[in-house]
This record gives sequence, C-alpha cells and structure tokens, in this order.
Amino acid sequence: MEREIAAAWDRVREAGPLIHHITNYVTVNDVANITLAAGASPIMADCPEEVAEITALSNGLCLNIGTLNERTLGSMKLAAEEAARLKHPLLLDPVGAGASALRSRAAKEIMAAGQVTAIRGNVSEIKSLLAETSHVRGVDAGDDLTDNREAAARWAMAAAAKLGAVVAVTGAVDLVADATHCFAISNGRAEMSRITGTGCQCSTLAAASLAAGSEPLTATAAAVMAMGLAGEIAYEHLQPWEGNATYRNRIIDAIYHLQGQDLATGARYEIYE
Amino acid sequence: MEREIAAAWDRVREAGPLIHHITNYVTVNDVANITLAAGASPIMADCPEEVAEITALSNGLCLNIGTLNERTLGSMKLAAEEAARLKHPLLLDPVGAGASALRSRAAKEIMAAGQVTAIRGNVSEIKSLLAETSHVRGVDAGDDLTDNREAAARWAMAAAAKLGAVVAVTGAVDLVADATHCFAISNGRAEMSRITGTGCQCSTLAAASLAAGSEPLTATAAAVMAMGLAGEIAYEHLQPWEGNATYRNRIIDAIYHLQGQDLATGARYEIYE
Amino acid sequence: MEREIAAAWDRVREAGPLIHHITNYVTVNDVANITLAAGASPIMADCPEEVAEITALSNGLCLNIGTLNERTLGSMKLAAEEAARLKHPLLLDPVGAGASALRSRAAKEIMAAGQVTAIRGNVSEIKSLLAETSHVRGVDAGDDLTDNREAAARWAMAAAAKLGAVVAVTGAVDLVADATHCFAISNGRAEMSRITGTGCQCSTLAAASLAAGSEPLTATAAAVMAMGLAGEIAYEHLQPWEGNATYRNRIIDAIYHLQGQDLATGARYEIYE
Repeated sequence: MEREIAAAWDRVREAGPLIHHITNYVTVNDVANITLAAGASPIMADCPEEVAEITALSNGLCLNIGTLNERTLGSMKLAAEEAARLKHPLLLDPVGAGASALRSRAAKEIMAAGQVTAIRGNVSEIKSLLAETSHVRGVDAGDDLTDNREAAARWAMAAAAKLGAVVAVTGAVDLVADATHCFAISNGRAEMSRITGTGCQCSTLAAASLAAGSEPLTATAAAVMAMGLAGEIAYEHLQPWEGNATYRNRIIDAIYHLQGQDLATGARYEIYE
Repeated sequence: MEREIAAAWDRVREAGPLIHHITNYVTVNDVANITLAAGASPIMADCPEEVAEITALSNGLCLNIGTLNERTLGSMKLAAEEAARLKHPLLLDPVGAGASALRSRAAKEIMAAGQVTAIRGNVSEIKSLLAETSHVRGVDAGDDLTDNREAAARWAMAAAAKLGAVVAVTGAVDLVADATHCFAISNGRAEMSRITGTGCQCSTLAAASLAAGSEPLTATAAAVMAMGLAGEIAYEHLQPWEGNATYRNRIIDAIYHLQGQDLATGARYEIYE
Repeated sequence: MEREIAAAWDRVREAGPLIHHITNYVTVNDVANITLAAGASPIMADCPEEVAEITALSNGLCLNIGTLNERTLGSMKLAAEEAARLKHPLLLDPVGAGASALRSRAAKEIMAAGQVTAIRGNVSEIKSLLAETSHVRGVDAGDDLTDNREAAARWAMAAAAKLGAVVAVTGAVDLVADATHCFAISNGRAEMSRITGTGCQCSTLAAASLAAGSEPLTATAAAVMAMGLAGEIAYEHLQPWEGNATYRNRIIDAIYHLQGQDLATGARYEIYE
C-alpha cells in the first residue's frame, strides 16, 4: 500500500491537473498556493455565467461552502452538473454544514446536482450530511472518534456507503473511507487547528489527487496523509517565538517539497475492512 | 489597572469565544488567523439567509465595512439586530467612513439597527461618524491627536458619549474611551501602517475581548494594547531584509504567544478621567 | 535609460499615490501589501454605488477581472468611465481572458468604457484581447516568445498599437511595449509562477508607477523590472526547505526595500524600436 500511496501523491506533480475552485474568500489564497505547491494549478471562478466553461477546461472541481451565498450556491450546482457530465472528479467541503439551514441545504443540493467523488469535513459536518440524507441514521459516532478506532472506522465506511462517496473525516485521527475500506491516519499535529483553512487546504489536495487520476480512496487518503505529514515537517522548522501565521506558511512550504517517497516512510495509518 | 488589563486579555484564551465576522475580503484571512492566535474562534458568514443563525450561535459580532456592498450591508443590519436581541457584544469597524456616501450611510444604519458596544477606527473615520450623527459637532480634533494628549482624550470621551459606545481611535497614539475615562496608549510602531489590515486585526481582537466578558472599556483597551505590543515584539524578530509581508506574519505570531502578564509589563498608557 | 527607470521607481515612494482596486479575492491581500511595500496606498471598493467616488479620490485605477461577476463588471465599467473623465491612469489585468466568454467580453467592455493606459497579462490573455478587437489579427506570436526576441518585440509593439495602450506581456521574458518601443526584460525566476498572484502584484506595481506620474512606457517597464528583480532578491533569502508560501512573502519584503538605484544596477533588458 505504501507504493500506491506514494504513486498517488507523485501523480499530482506528473499530471499537473487544473482544479476549478468555488470556495470561500477566507482561505482562498492559501488554497491556491497549496494547489500550486502540490504541482497542480488552481482556477477560481464563481460567476454563474462562466462556471460551466471553467469546469469544462479544468480536470477537477473543488466546492467549498464557507462564505456561501445564493449566487455562488447556484454556480456550485451548475459546476457540479457540468463536472458530472464530463465525469470530472468533484470534491465537496461542506464547511459549517449543520451550523445554518442554508449550509445544510447547500450541501444537500450540491450532492443532488452532481456526482460527488469525495467529501472532506470534520465529524460534525459529516454527521450533519448524514442526518440530511437519511431519516433513520443507523450509524452514529461520538464527536471524539478516537476512543474506539475500529468503531469509528466502521462508522466512516457506513457514512461513505450512505453518501455514495469517499468520506474523509479529519480530526485528531483522520478517517478516509469508502464503503468497504477505511484508512485511520495518525499524521498531523493539534496546532494545525489553530490555523484557519487547514481543512480547506486538505480538501484541495484531495481534489488535485483525484483529478490526477488515482483510484478515489487511495487518492483521498494520500492527500490527507500529505497534509498531516506536512504539518509535522513544518512544525520542526518553527522557532519558539513563531506562531500560527508562520506555521501556515511552513505547511505550504512543506507540501512544495513533499515527495511520494516521504509519504511512503512518514505516513502512519491502519486499514480497516 | 495592570491586573484588570492582564485578566481581560487572558480571559480571551480561557473563554475561547466564537466571533461572527462580516468583514472585508482584503484582510479576512489575517483577521481569522489573529482571532485563532488570541485563543478565540472565527466564523465568517455574510449571506442574509443565514447571518442571524450564525450570530445566534456565536458569542460576539465583528462588523467591518471595507469592501461593503448592498447585500452584505443588509446582512450586517440583520446580524446587528440579532446580536442586540441576544445582548451579544458588537464591534463596528467603519473602514473608510467618510470616503463615500455608501460607507457613511452604512455605518449610520448599522448603529441604528443594533447596539454597538465598541467602535474602532482611525481619527477621520470616527470624525465622520460624529458628523453623521450630530449636526452640532461640539467636539473636534486635529487629524494628529498627539499634539495635546489631554485634549485628545477629552475629545475621545465626548465622541464615546455621543456615539453611545466605547470608541477606539488608533493612530500614533491610540485612544480608547468611554464617556468618563480614556486610555491614551503608546504601544505600537509606525511600520504597522505599512501592513494592510492591522486595523481590522485590532478590531477583531477587541471583539474577542468583549465577547470573553470583560467590562467593555477594559476589554477594548486590552485588545488595542495587545495589538501594539505585538507590533513591537514582532519588529524585534525582523531581519534587516524583511519587510511588511513578514512583519504581518510576525505580529500574528506574537499574538499567538502573548499573555496577560506581558501586557501587565509591556503596555504603556495614561488614563484620563 | 537607467536613470529614467530608477527615477520612475523612486517616484512611487515620493508621490505615494492612492490606487483604487477592483480585483479578485484570491490575491487581493498580497496586492494590498505589495502596494504598501512600494510606497503607494491601496483602497479596495467594488460596490456600484460607491466606485465612482472612490475612483475620484484616488490617483489611479487597477482593474483585475479574476473572480469577476456581473456586479463587479458593472462597477469596473463605472470606475473606468470616471477614471477617463478625470484622466487618471487605468491599468487593466485581463486575468483569464479567453478562458471564458464572460472574461473576454469583460475585458472588451472595460476597454470600451474607459481609456486604458496599460494592460498586463500573459501571452494568451493578450492574444485573446487582440482577437476580440480585430478581425484581421495581422500580428501573431507563438506562446513562447523567447525563441526570437526581436520578432516578439515587434509583435508586442503591434499589439500596443492595436490596443491603444502600453502592453506588458509577462513570461520567461517580459515584454513591455508601446507602439514604437519595446523593452525585453530578463529579470525574474521561473519559481515565481508557482506562487499565486505574482501577475496581479506586478499589475498593481504598474498602476502605482503610472499614478506616480512617470511616462507610461517607462513607468510600466520599471514596475515589471522591479517585480522580476524582487523575485531574484527574494530567492536568495530562501532556505532549502522553504517553498512558495515563504517565497511569496519574501518577494513583497524585497519590494519593501527596493530602491531606484537597485533597478539601475539590477535590471536586465534590451530596447527595440
């Protein structure tokens, strides 16, 4: 598996996919720079009049519902339809799903409009999507998924089956699952949660990895491992008086230099079936 | 007073308030990261359909009218109303008030819609608000408030009385006043004005400090002192060939490490009554 | 010529022009900070209700069509009209012209609404503008303009004549031309293309340089040389483990310290007539 993970990561630089983003304006600059750091290219466009064209000339689509509005939600649905038509991979980051009726509805409508390949969120966002799409939830998990890793992995696989997509639930332990397999990944550092947008950045790495053509579960897992490992490498370079602003830059810098071989030796995970 | 200032600052990390921002897209990323650096959490949402919900689940509201438009102005008024209903503190940053009719009107309408706890701006912005809300201004000040610090402090107290809020006027000397007391703060460096968004960042620190529950004047003064002191600490870490981009990161880094004890020893101010 | 270039650059700090930007939200923060680094001041405003007022109180206008929408396109045209009326310089950055019908139309409509002083883009964007404004193109160039520098320079001069503006085509070699003269500039590094927004940043430097009052061709050329030279200086300060995020900051830092004298000694160019 080390080899497949490493190959998935290296494929991003080899393929250099163009990723169309409709994303929030809080973290968009870091998202663009980490896309470039990984060897892919970003294009941001959110006007209904042009989104289908931009999706069509790209290799993958990354939709992020932070700072959503009615105009951009309409654009996301148009882009999702076009991506489905062209069989481009679509990564959905349901930022704040559950925090407002608008965001919960937005995630649901995007999933209905297109064919979501993978979803990356925190546990409460993923649980919100499950509640929206299922009257009898049948699966549940505590907010802390670390207590029983095997139970958490089974929950993630059930979530992936229900949502019809690879599901990446990031937190203290990251779970990346399809209906039959789940990676439980231990890379990363708690300090990453003190930076805005590490989740958004992880999502765009997953979109780039999917667009580079690897199998979806492996592609998404490689991106999540890369983000966590970059957080570890970056932390080693911090001076005692440096904080979250410099750490943010160092993580993108670490992605800029990260190779598949680094993942092969640095990724820490278990696989549940 | 040192003890109250220190306690107000430490309370931000203890309480970890969630701050709803409707803010400009120029400096929003730095605003989010400095909020996290201070130990609070940011949430950005500007769609009319969801702003009241987001305000309701937050602990404080920070409204910033840079890059305003009609849609976001409507959202700001809805959020201000909800914050007033819930008695959440509201910080207004009237960026560019006086520079256009829209911005002057926006500041006025937000003040009418909600209950502003504190306002942070430069002297021309605050003077613009006074002109909008009072036909006979009765108070005035030169653009340079440093010539006569006591007169400037009296002007700031009169402004706070008229505007019905704590007023923070930042510049070479920072004035933070309510109707009866004024802090004249000497922290900070001139080079901070060569970074975009140090004002916006100061505003969100004040919003976080207010939302943590301290008395409004002390809370706002502690935030302004913290921003200035962070500017001093950050400057010491700059290499001769580093400039405003790195300085920006270093200031957020300094906030990440700043403790109440540092304010107790590093803040430089006088109090006028 | 060294002296004119150096003087044009130093004039930005001397004049400290205020530059009104209607620009994309991806790179807007870096654009604001590099404007400040150069000694100018940025103001961002994109609401139709206020843009003419903001243009009127500024010294120059910088329009960038990345992340365009119908609302901001309308604002750009209003601002362009006001700038023409006041004879303020207008810099157009046609980001993605040719990538969608909207962007091609936007660039065309802005050029029709106002009086564009200078246009900065990559070769495909400039070629797209030529196609839009001319049925018989008469001029053409390969995507790689480095093969025959003199032919490329002649193409750029023809483009400038057709578009009625100074044209800056940035790439491996940067061409800055009016109808009769062309600078072919060799500063910069390939790694700059791995940072989002170096083009946008170059555009705002050109807008600032134009607004400072230098002759348009010299003003634009000085800005392009400054951006390239800053990329070279910044690269020297990078540690082996640093990447595009830190490089981005270092480039802005280098602009912060760059003086006309540095351009006089560090700029590398030929002039074609």
